[in-house]
Amino acid sequence: METNNEKFLSVSAIQNGTVIDHIPAGRLFHVIDLLKLHTIKENRMTFGTNFKSERFGRKGVIKISGKFFEDIDMDKIALIAPNAKVNIIRDYKVVEKRKVAVPNKITAIAKCMNPKCITNHEEVTTKFDVITDDKKVALKCLYCEKITDQDNLELI
Amino acid sequence: METNNEKFLSVSAIQNGTVIDHIPAGRLFHVIDLLKLHTIKENRMTFGTNFKSERFGRKGVIKISGKFFEDIDMDKIALIAPNAKVNIIRDYKVVEKRKVAVPNKITAIAKCMNPKCITNHEEVTTKFDVITDDKKVALKCLYCEKITDQDNLELI
Repeated sequence: METNNEKFLSVSAIQNGTVIDHIPAGRLFHVIDLLKLHTIKENRMTFGTNFKSERFGRKGVIKISGKFFEDIDMDKIALIAPNAKVNIIRDYKVVEKRKVAVPNKITAIAKCMNPKCITNHEEVTTKFDVITDDKKVALKCLYCEKITDQDNLELI
Repeated sequence: METNNEKFLSVSAIQNGTVIDHIPAGRLFHVIDLLKLHTIKENRMTFGTNFKSERFGRKGVIKISGKFFEDIDMDKIALIAPNAKVNIIRDYKVVEKRKVAVPNKITAIAKCMNPKCITNHEEVTTKFDVITDDKKVALKCLYCEKITDQDNLELI
């Protein structure tokens, strides 16, 4: 009888890359979508969700070998996982810990949920003020003033 | 300096559940979609892709705690990952190894890629003969005889 964990364990540590931790469990797939991880053809990736977390109840984790993200990606992650922690790994060690920062204003990366908003009908770049508390993020449209809450947040 | 792997390692073994191994790397997210894993709210899950595999070059793996799948799910997996191996885990041991079996005929679980096929215009249940070699699966529609190859395979 063999145990089931040996192979998986041996590959889950990464030498160089990025670990995104403390993603709310239900938003793991949103983060995967927004980082377009399904399009990555070479880098070894592991994902986990519904792990126990004192803060969130349940959390998700993403580990990607040989990949480092841009600041705009961090801003996007912040919008759907404002408490995520991003660890940069070099030679199997955490060399940098970044907290994603929810920006005060965002331009062009989200859609206004108001179907009547001009940004949904004409070639106008979306702009929002970001309203945030400890766990949630909402966006106030600078054109129609409608608030897009996290559950209706659609990134573009 | 802390290492990055301790927490992740400690959660990646599962006590009871299912491991789906030998998924072609590029099809991991297809398998996740067809098993609707994004809708699972409680079970701990880990996924990985682009791991080295002698047979496929690169492979994906899915591990789900406390979850066991139906035969119809196995048939669906077989269509997009015909060499997948499904291990059933009890008390941290592999108690059953199943190879997914590509069925000879399938009914109602895939779409015909021929836009003119009657199954895409009327309420007709799709039916296909399954054509398979070692690595690929294609479906021959019993209505229009058009062959839907794996790259165009859309499950319903």
